Amino acid sequence: MNQPLPTLRWHGEHNGHLVLIDQTRLPADVVERHCHTVAEVWKAIRTLAVRGAPAIGCAAAYGVCVGLAEGLPLQQICDSLRTSRPTAVNLFWALDRMQKVAEEVTPDQLREALLSEAKKIHQEDRQMCADIGTQGADLLSGLAPGSDLLTHCNAGALATGGDGTALSVIFELARRKKQPHVWVDETRPLLQGARLTSWELQRRNIDCTLICDSMAAQVMQEGRVQAIITGADRIAANGDTANKIGTQSIAILAQYFDIPFYIAAPTSTFDLALATGNEIPIEQREAQEITHSFGASTAPPGVGVYNPGFDVTPAKLITKIITEDGVLTPQTEAIQKFFSSQVAHPWSST
Amino acid sequence: MNQPLPTLRWHGEHNGHLVLIDQTRLPADVVERHCHTVAEVWKAIRTLAVRGAPAIGCAAAYGVCVGLAEGLPLQQICDSLRTSRPTAVNLFWALDRMQKVAEEVTPDQLREALLSEAKKIHQEDRQMCADIGTQGADLLSGLAPGSDLLTHCNAGALATGGDGTALSVIFELARRKKQPHVWVDETRPLLQGARLTSWELQRRNIDCTLICDSMAAQVMQEGRVQAIITGADRIAANGDTANKIGTQSIAILAQYFDIPFYIAAPTSTFDLALATGNEIPIEQREAQEITHSFGASTAPPGVGVYNPGFDVTPAKLITKIITEDGVLTPQTEAIQKFFSSQVAHPWSST
Repeated sequence: MNQPLPTLRWHGEHNGHLVLIDQTRLPADVVERHCHTVAEVWKAIRTLAVRGAPAIGCAAAYGVCVGLAEGLPLQQICDSLRTSRPTAVNLFWALDRMQKVAEEVTPDQLREALLSEAKKIHQEDRQMCADIGTQGADLLSGLAPGSDLLTHCNAGALATGGDGTALSVIFELARRKKQPHVWVDETRPLLQGARLTSWELQRRNIDCTLICDSMAAQVMQEGRVQAIITGADRIAANGDTANKIGTQSIAILAQYFDIPFYIAAPTSTFDLALATGNEIPIEQREAQEITHSFGASTAPPGVGVYNPGFDVTPAKLITKIITEDGVLTPQTEAIQKFFSSQVAHPWSST
Repeated sequence: MNQPLPTLRWHGEHNGHLVLIDQTRLPADVVERHCHTVAEVWKAIRTLAVRGAPAIGCAAAYGVCVGLAEGLPLQQICDSLRTSRPTAVNLFWALDRMQKVAEEVTPDQLREALLSEAKKIHQEDRQMCADIGTQGADLLSGLAPGSDLLTHCNAGALATGGDGTALSVIFELARRKKQPHVWVDETRPLLQGARLTSWELQRRNIDCTLICDSMAAQVMQEGRVQAIITGADRIAANGDTANKIGTQSIAILAQYFDIPFYIAAPTSTFDLALATGNEIPIEQREAQEITHSFGASTAPPGVGVYNPGFDVTPAKLITKIITEDGVLTPQTEAIQKFFSSQVAHPWSST
């Protein structure tokens, strides 16, 4: 397997900066982008140069360190970064963690302590990915070798500080000689499936086939999908899950075709302050993402456009949620019980 | 309302040629394409410069006249045109009609008789569109003014010799002051919804909003779709309907959200020789349509691609089929009864 470049990394000491793969330029160019200011980190998150809920959390944590190196006040840095993306809860989770550490140290210790915390978040993220891979591959151990999986968007190494969430499960199945074949939804409008997921799978020599989002029903209907697995951007207390637009659609098709539908996400993706998915804010994005697909104008000027970045898949359509600490049934009581038995968790936005 | 250019027209007498709007260049350029040879007609159909089942039928009929003007034998012309698109049954229907007329005339009369038949097919198509509009608007007369409809691909004037099938219903609702708002699925990979349907609706001053195919579930979930209406490429004897890839997906979502799902198509779209949709051949198209979206390469080189052009929506997911001769319940017996009461129909591929 090719070792992919790290999705993001810190360069230098506490006066250093954040370096990340510019995902807007994949797969044509593999280029690193250097962020020396909070404004640059904000823009990288906003424009999806770095994306995926766990990776956004890591980038925001390092973004705090960038801001301190730049000489900005902590509160201003965090306030700014909080506005970059509204749906991915890991963004707020990481910034809260950073601010909490800041409260416990002297001004002299601040930079070093926060860089150390950011690196800790990053390292935990790597471990989380590995653990999700193990939990998911254990759960799917009954799949026959050569089984077909389907995924939407990118929940891979590029979406995290480690090996991914949904794709980590697939990578682990491959390590266990299950030879999975993966249907990759291209994931309009920004084609994270086509550009990122198929690139990651190809680099790891995992057999995959790219389809348009509208073709998922067809491959399911042909009996060529044994399981579906995606990541998540925020999960409510009842298991309702916000993820990339199109996920709900796939989950409804999965129910119709009687195919298990799994979410793979770290426990930090849960927002237990939200009783249901109705309370999850849905980011609305620019019309241009749809009307100007990669340069060319593909719609008449002035046409109305609706471009929600996410949708919420109701818990009842989700077979299981795979976390680093175990596999959950998406029901309020089961989720409550799971988190009340955790020491470090739950994190909650309250 | 702006009067759109005719989708296709015959220029000159029986030694004339076929002129059609090059739909691959819409909406950026409104350009007519002149086809002086069967090879040019074949290519126009294959590359979707002209598309939509009824328009393909008209183009093929005129294509026969082009071939005769070119001096080719009838059988060779028809054999060639038959290979241009495998799924749209109107192609074969139109060619069969032309060949049948040819059998009944002397060689001297051939060119004139076939041009006359092609023009008749075209004129019938115009009338068919108008009648489908009336039938559909009558069926949907209960919709409140300002209701939201959703459509997939393009079943408008550009898909026919007249005003369209699904869009003809919407145009008629607009004429009846129902002020419909239309959600337009962009329809990957070739974006007929974004490029053609929103262009047609805009030109007719009908309120519309463009979405990616993966967003249809979201607008349904928000309660913002009261009815769905699409065209069809081939309908089996039991009502199973082949249409642009992604249609089945929308129909499954419609069932989940309890929204009526209508097909609007001429009776010539029925292929009663096929008992069910399982027998409908599904055209497989070039990988490049997905990997090179309008110029830019958006997937890693060498990635596997699956690109079915159509899918089959099972009859049980279709609320009603709207034809020019009446509204059908998609069940074998109802369809049989309907066609046995017709004089000129049914056409059947046997």
